[in-house]
Amino acid sequence: MQTIDILIKNGQIVTAGGHEEPVAGAKMNELQVLETGCIAIAGDTITAVGREPEVLAQVEITENTQIIDAEGQTITPGLIDPHTHLIFGGSREDEFVMRIQGASYMEIMEAGGGILNTVTATRKATLQELKQSGRKRLDWMLKMGTTTIESKSGYGLDVETELKQLQASYELSQEHPIDIINTFLGAHAWPEEYKDNHSAYIRQIITEMLPLVKKRGLARFCDVFCEKGVFSIEETREIMLAAKELGFDLRMHADEIHQLGGAELAAELEAVSADHLLMISDQGIKDMRSKGVIAVLLPATAFTLMKPYAPAQKMLEEGLPFALATDFNPGSSPTPSIPLAMTIGCLYMKLTPEQAFHAVTINAAHSLGIADKLGSIESGKQADIVIFDVDSYRKIPYFYGVNLVKMVIKKGKIVINN
Amino acid sequence: MQTIDILIKNGQIVTAGGHEEPVAGAKMNELQVLETGCIAIAGDTITAVGREPEVLAQVEITENTQIIDAEGQTITPGLIDPHTHLIFGGSREDEFVMRIQGASYMEIMEAGGGILNTVTATRKATLQELKQSGRKRLDWMLKMGTTTIESKSGYGLDVETELKQLQASYELSQEHPIDIINTFLGAHAWPEEYKDNHSAYIRQIITEMLPLVKKRGLARFCDVFCEKGVFSIEETREIMLAAKELGFDLRMHADEIHQLGGAELAAELEAVSADHLLMISDQGIKDMRSKGVIAVLLPATAFTLMKPYAPAQKMLEEGLPFALATDFNPGSSPTPSIPLAMTIGCLYMKLTPEQAFHAVTINAAHSLGIADKLGSIESGKQADIVIFDVDSYRKIPYFYGVNLVKMVIKKGKIVINN
Repeated sequence: MQTIDILIKNGQIVTAGGHEEPVAGAKMNELQVLETGCIAIAGDTITAVGREPEVLAQVEITENTQIIDAEGQTITPGLIDPHTHLIFGGSREDEFVMRIQGASYMEIMEAGGGILNTVTATRKATLQELKQSGRKRLDWMLKMGTTTIESKSGYGLDVETELKQLQASYELSQEHPIDIINTFLGAHAWPEEYKDNHSAYIRQIITEMLPLVKKRGLARFCDVFCEKGVFSIEETREIMLAAKELGFDLRMHADEIHQLGGAELAAELEAVSADHLLMISDQGIKDMRSKGVIAVLLPATAFTLMKPYAPAQKMLEEGLPFALATDFNPGSSPTPSIPLAMTIGCLYMKLTPEQAFHAVTINAAHSLGIADKLGSIESGKQADIVIFDVDSYRKIPYFYGVNLVKMVIKKGKIVINN
Repeated sequence: MQTIDILIKNGQIVTAGGHEEPVAGAKMNELQVLETGCIAIAGDTITAVGREPEVLAQVEITENTQIIDAEGQTITPGLIDPHTHLIFGGSREDEFVMRIQGASYMEIMEAGGGILNTVTATRKATLQELKQSGRKRLDWMLKMGTTTIESKSGYGLDVETELKQLQASYELSQEHPIDIINTFLGAHAWPEEYKDNHSAYIRQIITEMLPLVKKRGLARFCDVFCEKGVFSIEETREIMLAAKELGFDLRMHADEIHQLGGAELAAELEAVSADHLLMISDQGIKDMRSKGVIAVLLPATAFTLMKPYAPAQKMLEEGLPFALATDFNPGSSPTPSIPLAMTIGCLYMKLTPEQAFHAVTINAAHSLGIADKLGSIESGKQADIVIFDVDSYRKIPYFYGVNLVKMVIKKGKIVINN
């Protein structure tokens, strides 16, 4: 029998099932809940899950096995945040106030604030400075139960700074317990230098940035902010096709502020995900579903921008699977909390706790192409586990704005122990 | 010179000024901000505040003085939460889901859920059980920077349980770093036993509960939930006048769901505060201002119930001072976080960070009658201080949903040190 390093017992184990496919429609309400369940961990892997006698029949406990009693607590997979802008210089609390006083996100951006404000600060910052602020933000996330995130570039908008951002998150992924999956987002805004010469910037992205990022292995995904006044449908298609040709997987900022047909384009390109989608058309939902594109919904962004929410109910009806993410960034979503994104999603997208739970575990894993090893508690999967100090998963979105995390285990190691 | 126990230096000190009166109107934007400031603490008292040389000229540092370097951090008064329902049995995450699916707060209450659901659980709970769950919630609050709260009864609705609730919070106040100021809220709902005999329950409140609570010294304030279907204006007046006669100070749940004239009544009764006020009339604002009644606004409740927000902008225009509170309770506001209440207030009541800051410090202290010793950082006041791990107070409502607290000092003792 296999000797184990950690045995967690007596807690409520909550997980999505062992899905080969993202979970959609009515199935998003079907969680596996095991009261007084037990999990065995050997090295970085879950080796058995079930009732205590079943698990103990399969594994061997030694004097080195750490026994964790989770009585009265809830055990979940490590939370996954599939859309963040982790690495940036400066901060934009002043724009937070401007927005409160009535300026729109696009007005601030057109006035040289918004993303371009952060671009200036990010260009000035050294790699070490970006890593230092990034590390603090990763600590915030880990404390709230997040164990894997996606992280985008897009505050450089020049070759050097885009690479510096990706390098910072790449190095942090080696140093920090949180796993980081990088996305290249050179097409996040038009840099000042190219504002009257879009085609030259697109050429730079396609001929310089994408090949360099690929050569250095710095990103798995390519993303574009497809939006009125930012990258048009045609410009997005051109960049995405070039990225695909180079072997990038695709994700896309689509239909956030205006209905441009971004979701339809994401389907056409067979992107892995299309994100935001506040203004998605009915056709866009159908197209995404038929091409297997997952929606990544960002309720904290709608909350921060005081915008309408993405039509999650329509997606449930149409069987389009979705994930939830924080969209953590210095402008439109300064929160790093997946549990709070769940609460906002429950209240304002009318999600049940079960749907929200799928969206931040197994579906988030699918949206990053990592569901083979993450996103659920199953024998054989990586041991990324969170123990919450509440006796039911339904209390995680309910008691909001407070940190309920008791313990975080990442790759079989206890990294938070409150 | 006075020897000191703690010296905090190099941080951004942020405080409202030494106000004799609650802060209203344009003055709510005028914070005192001292970059690289210094605070000296002796025993439980602040003995000097200012630039480091000024402070060092006034006090004596010994080998026992603890020096805290707050470089890059923000130093604020301990946050004050002037409206909570801390003590209750059970929890109501199932109603959270019912509400998401469309049931209104009043519909749930009329169906025997809501407050009466918690009443059943609270009657069943022992004093020790109520203290145990209350202690956990106080820990949540303290970690987020709250050092003083108000706590209401109102989940007993019978003599024994109302006293048990108040006893629980009284004892917790002795044992826990957070100071708790008790409010008797026997008139929170109609108990099942008296639903067809309101006058008998009012008689019980007036002739049994209020005198007993007074005799045992268990509450400073008396509160009534004045609302359509709960306590009418006339019933509220009757209870409040009796409480006043016995020497209670008054606060009131007013004009939350319907415009009943609750604010006008609070003014007539010269209550210390009127709370909620989502539906307050223009006359109610004027009446409260002229009688010196402070508004206590509860943005997290409006957020949780998906209701319109109280008209804070009109109160600013009219010069009516207001505080912010969490309204922490198992139904309409399951969040214990004052920083998140600030964020929701900023975004959805259009408050500036400065206004929100006044509302959770000096004005919250005034609304509890404790501004003589709490609510600002001034020489002579009690040393209740929070150090946030951000370099400006403007980042406290901005980076939301995460705990930014680095250190909490309560009565001169370090009680949280992250």
